[in-house]
Amino acid sequence: MIAKTPQPPYYAVIFTSTRTDVKKDYSEIAERMVDLAKVQPGFLGFESAREEIGISVSYWKDLESIGNWKKNLEHLTAQKMGKENWYKSYKTRIAKVERDYEYFKV
Amino acid sequence: MIAKTPQPPYYAVIFTSTRTDVKKDYSEIAERMVDLAKVQPGFLGFESAREEIGISVSYWKDLESIGNWKKNLEHLTAQKMGKENWYKSYKTRIAKVERDYEYFKV
Repeated sequence: MIAKTPQPPYYAVIFTSTRTDVKKDYSEIAERMVDLAKVQPGFLGFESAREEIGISVSYWKDLESIGNWKKNLEHLTAQKMGKENWYKSYKTRIAKVERDYEYFKV
Repeated sequence: MIAKTPQPPYYAVIFTSTRTDVKKDYSEIAERMVDLAKVQPGFLGFESAREEIGISVSYWKDLESIGNWKKNLEHLTAQKMGKENWYKSYKTRIAKVERDYEYFKV
C-alpha cells in the first residue's frame, strides 16, 4: 500500500539493496523489522518492492526518530545479519520530504 | 542497479504507485521516460521495483532540474496517459537527500 503520510515536512529513509542467494531467516526478520519499526516513536509509514533491486522506504517524523530506530538493539542485530548474510550491496539515503502530491482514481 | 549518486545534498523524487490492469503502451512509455529523464540536465540516477506497489526513485541535482523535467512536453503527455490509463493511485514525494551511506560485499 502507498503510505498515508502527514503533510510535509517529514523524513524518508530510502534503502536500496541487492540480495545474496541466502534465504535463511531473511523473510521472517524482514517482516519482524517492519512490525518493530511500526511501533517506534515517530514512525509514519513504510513502502517496499523488490525486482532486480529492492527499494524500501520508511517515513519518519524527524532525524531523532531515525537515529533511535537505527540504534534499536534488535534492529542492530538484524543490520549485522543483513550485512553478513542477505545483502550483496545496499545504499541508505536519509532525505527530508519537502513536498508531496497524490492521485486516486475515483 | 543501485544508483551511483554524488555526495549529498541532492534531491530524490519518490514515486509510489498502484497500477490498473491496462497494459497497452505502458512498458514502452515507461522505458522511454527513463531514457528521456537520463538526458535531462541535473539527472543523477534512477532506481525502480514493482511488486504489490511500484516504487521509482529518480535523483536530481536540484529543485530546478526536477521542475524542468516535470514540465517536459513529452513527459507531460506521459503523465496524462498515466493518470488516465495506467495508475490506480500514486504519490509523489520530493525530498532533499541530506546523508547517504553504502555497503558492497567484497
